[in-house]
Amino acid sequence: MKRIEDFKSIIDRYEVVFFDAFGVLKNHSGLLSGIGRTFDYLAQQKKEYYIVTNDASRSPSELAESYHKKGLHLITADRIISSGQLTKEYLDLKVDGGIVAYLGTDESAHYIESAGLKTLPVRDVNNSNIDKVNALVFLDDEGFDWFSDLNKAVNILRRRTIPAIVANTDHAYPVSLTDVAIAIGGLSKMVETIVGKKFIRFGKPDSQMFMFVYDLIRSYREINKKQIVMVGDTLQTDIIGGNKFGLDTVLVLSGNTRPDDAESWISASGIVPTYVCNSAVLGPEALNL
Amino acid sequence: MKRIEDFKSIIDRYEVVFFDAFGVLKNHSGLLSGIGRTFDYLAQQKKEYYIVTNDASRSPSELAESYHKKGLHLITADRIISSGQLTKEYLDLKVDGGIVAYLGTDESAHYIESAGLKTLPVRDVNNSNIDKVNALVFLDDEGFDWFSDLNKAVNILRRRTIPAIVANTDHAYPVSLTDVAIAIGGLSKMVETIVGKKFIRFGKPDSQMFMFVYDLIRSYREINKKQIVMVGDTLQTDIIGGNKFGLDTVLVLSGNTRPDDAESWISASGIVPTYVCNSAVLGPEALNL
Amino acid sequence: MKRIEDFKSIIDRYEVVFFDAFGVLKNHSGLLSGIGRTFDYLAQQKKEYYIVTNDASRSPSELAESYHKKGLHLITADRIISSGQLTKEYLDLKVDGGIVAYLGTDESAHYIESAGLKTLPVRDVNNSNIDKVNALVFLDDEGFDWFSDLNKAVNILRRRTIPAIVANTDHAYPVSLTDVAIAIGGLSKMVETIVGKKFIRFGKPDSQMFMFVYDLIRSYREINKKQIVMVGDTLQTDIIGGNKFGLDTVLVLSGNTRPDDAESWISASGIVPTYVCNSAVLGPEALNL
Amino acid sequence: MKRIEDFKSIIDRYEVVFFDAFGVLKNHSGLLSGIGRTFDYLAQQKKEYYIVTNDASRSPSELAESYHKKGLHLITADRIISSGQLTKEYLDLKVDGGIVAYLGTDESAHYIESAGLKTLPVRDVNNSNIDKVNALVFLDDEGFDWFSDLNKAVNILRRRTIPAIVANTDHAYPVSLTDVAIAIGGLSKMVETIVGKKFIRFGKPDSQMFMFVYDLIRSYREINKKQIVMVGDTLQTDIIGGNKFGLDTVLVLSGNTRPDDAESWISASGIVPTYVCNSAVLGPEALNL
Repeated sequence: MKRIEDFKSIIDRYEVVFFDAFGVLKNHSGLLSGIGRTFDYLAQQKKEYYIVTNDASRSPSELAESYHKKGLHLITADRIISSGQLTKEYLDLKVDGGIVAYLGTDESAHYIESAGLKTLPVRDVNNSNIDKVNALVFLDDEGFDWFSDLNKAVNILRRRTIPAIVANTDHAYPVSLTDVAIAIGGLSKMVETIVGKKFIRFGKPDSQMFMFVYDLIRSYREINKKQIVMVGDTLQTDIIGGNKFGLDTVLVLSGNTRPDDAESWISASGIVPTYVCNSAVLGPEALNL
Repeated sequence: MKRIEDFKSIIDRYEVVFFDAFGVLKNHSGLLSGIGRTFDYLAQQKKEYYIVTNDASRSPSELAESYHKKGLHLITADRIISSGQLTKEYLDLKVDGGIVAYLGTDESAHYIESAGLKTLPVRDVNNSNIDKVNALVFLDDEGFDWFSDLNKAVNILRRRTIPAIVANTDHAYPVSLTDVAIAIGGLSKMVETIVGKKFIRFGKPDSQMFMFVYDLIRSYREINKKQIVMVGDTLQTDIIGGNKFGLDTVLVLSGNTRPDDAESWISASGIVPTYVCNSAVLGPEALNL
Repeated sequence: MKRIEDFKSIIDRYEVVFFDAFGVLKNHSGLLSGIGRTFDYLAQQKKEYYIVTNDASRSPSELAESYHKKGLHLITADRIISSGQLTKEYLDLKVDGGIVAYLGTDESAHYIESAGLKTLPVRDVNNSNIDKVNALVFLDDEGFDWFSDLNKAVNILRRRTIPAIVANTDHAYPVSLTDVAIAIGGLSKMVETIVGKKFIRFGKPDSQMFMFVYDLIRSYREINKKQIVMVGDTLQTDIIGGNKFGLDTVLVLSGNTRPDDAESWISASGIVPTYVCNSAVLGPEALNL
Repeated sequence: MKRIEDFKSIIDRYEVVFFDAFGVLKNHSGLLSGIGRTFDYLAQQKKEYYIVTNDASRSPSELAESYHKKGLHLITADRIISSGQLTKEYLDLKVDGGIVAYLGTDESAHYIESAGLKTLPVRDVNNSNIDKVNALVFLDDEGFDWFSDLNKAVNILRRRTIPAIVANTDHAYPVSLTDVAIAIGGLSKMVETIVGKKFIRFGKPDSQMFMFVYDLIRSYREINKKQIVMVGDTLQTDIIGGNKFGLDTVLVLSGNTRPDDAESWISASGIVPTYVCNSAVLGPEALNL
């Protein structure tokens, strides 16, 4: 591990940069101040980027739009890869028809729909349609009644031998400087323990997430893993996931990992980033050629 | 393991019988038909019994009353030992004052109250009183809003370094022949994982539950562990807990463990009851002296 | 799940077949009788196959040779993909020099060696070279003294903040009809718990294993996931791993999953293969065109 | 949590003091310098003490003798309570005859022997006697060949439906200032995972350990939990175990928990001792009346 203060000198060495979203580009108050310069610099240098996020609550287009509203116009939907897309690919490949029951908002469900598969909120599953339910998907912690619908999800999975797919591995997410909220990954883990079945989970640190982006890049250009760097704020997802996939990694200290904790957390976990930086924000001087 | 069909011949060998409640004395439809005869026989034979239950949703008096309403009048409050009583003992011994925040019904909270400790539902914790919260107790899956109050419990435990006590270790409980409901033990496990702290759990299979009853008996008579038998329907709580505490154990097949599964579950888990019986119900002939 | 007795009719629908090795092609007594016909048929039909195995104890060449010795000459080293190869790729990409300490046989270590990386058995790590140890790899359960070298591995990982890589996720493997042996995956899990660090594990059910083969195929031909079927005997590795990667899957009943258990294990685990077959062995009639 | 530097003022408030052994009375170099004064003071003040230890490798007499050899003569065998004694009580109550197979030294096994039970090292179990094996006990990490005997223990437990008892819950123990050794608790956990059965574990933090001592005291005098304090160096065993049993607790900083880590570990774990002290060693002035 080398402490390198200068994020610019790191990205200069790579052709493609993967960014985690929360804690790297934005936090509970909005975009990180100055993060727009980082994307200006990437454009100027003709370097590619991807945003690799466990957020399956919205489609890439909706996620891109949320950046535009905050003033970051360079981020386009085709550069946002979410665990929701892996869920969608799974359903397309593996579920042959019938109903996909879901826990989450209607928006999160629209996104995973495709020809031949009907999505239905768990609250609308009943004795007349339960036999057509061929998968149950955990998409978001909002959009349903926790008490009635979590209990109902448990009993659907006890009655039907079908795959349960979790579109977000995170157990919690920050909502303010001090507080967090329980994420669908945490809720689904409770249901999994009670039901005693094995769920399929998509999202970092799982390699399949990185493979999805890597494959996407190779569909239009040549690349190898040495040319990509993963930037994240969380050792347990971004950094170990990037490392395992064979990428170099940058731990930034603008999110989950605070400057005072970085060294002891790295040493305690054995998860070693290639670099540590204060943040992914570039100074104004970076743009002067 | 010996298969003994005759429950009467088993209890004849012991002086005290511990019963689990759900799956042994009652099920989702009410009392097991004929279970009254078992208590008539115990009274006739002057054998003592205790009901040892992980149900912390009500006080022993309220639990006793629920048996009376169903027609089983021999069961008295002093013979019902619940994990709620261990929680109460813990709070009395270890929490010196201030507020005990709780998740559960008001009835479950009234029971654990005592001089010097004020209970407060998690929904009523706010910035003006959070510093006085000295413990958080998980009592019941009802009586609160899962979405807002589970998230709030997470953040109380992130802000305050206080013990979190779980008054029921069960992750789920049956509500009909086919369906279960998520219990407070399951909800608390999710919160524990997210918060990353170590919770204190009371209830079978933990030895402290058995010790509590054993101590109670010794307060008025002499007894040793060889004179007690534990009757339960669940290998993972009643039987392993009883075994570990040094008691002989009877697995009854009227609840969680169905006759077809008993042998393979015992062999797979390595949890071996001293006896296996169809149920704790005695035939009418048992009462003829 | 459809019960299809006829393995031939399944592979007729796919262009590439992935086989697990143990329990599918061979067992503790040697090759499955008649399995050679399956490979004759694949050759005749010009279908491709890969053997996807968690066995990192030997190189693909050595593994191929072991099939040849048993009379199965059609299996070539380039068609055997082991978790050892992912370990090797990881070391090549992520460890920049110095020493890779290992637990395993010398043969297992030779295989992962490459220019610039020196392998050293854990027993030879000492105060003069420990500072050069940049990774510790768990390769095989043989080739070292469990007492002294497992304890030494624990202390190397306590002193050095380096990645620990496990080349085989299995906790145990069968050695006779009734007995199993503890595998390096089981030993490494114990070390991981004691050290409290996060290890990197390669092998089924992890998607990276399936990606590795998928990528290899795409390096010389076009393929999509719908054209591949994974054949395995274990729900928890072969089947859930194949399913999650988006492949169709065949559970064969010639290994870990016995015919009497298949239905209840599928229902209990929620891991549903696309097909269930008695075995991957084809009858003699399959070869008559 | 109150930081109280003065251990004497704490023990003055209680009638009985429970001590953990390792990290409190002794460390890898021997007895803590000055710890003798603490026992002189306890004798002078007529306060009772017990040493409550997860060390099942030797009998209380042998453990007492080891203190005498180091010059601490006030410690007598009747005041040392080890998890080995709970194991012995379990075997006496629950195993009716036949063979108890064990992993550990011969000394550790002699101790658990009693009339009617024959102990046999796992290495001597064979086809002629395996049917008489009625329990398997994990006693110590020494005294057997890890490779052959751990594998053999796995297969005994696969063949026989018998209880497996672990006489020490610790996963590792310190052997020098920097190094640890894998304990029988860690080895048994690996075997438990592989075998898939549920083992019975004795030792702190389990309440049964504290009950055993509490019961012992009540056999000769009256006592209540408010009159006892537990002194330990480990939050996860001594402190949470003592707290849950209802005792006041003292965390000493002479062992596993270092002064710099105490506050953050307490806050991260939510395990709160009643007091924190530098060590259990009293200054020379304590003995001047």
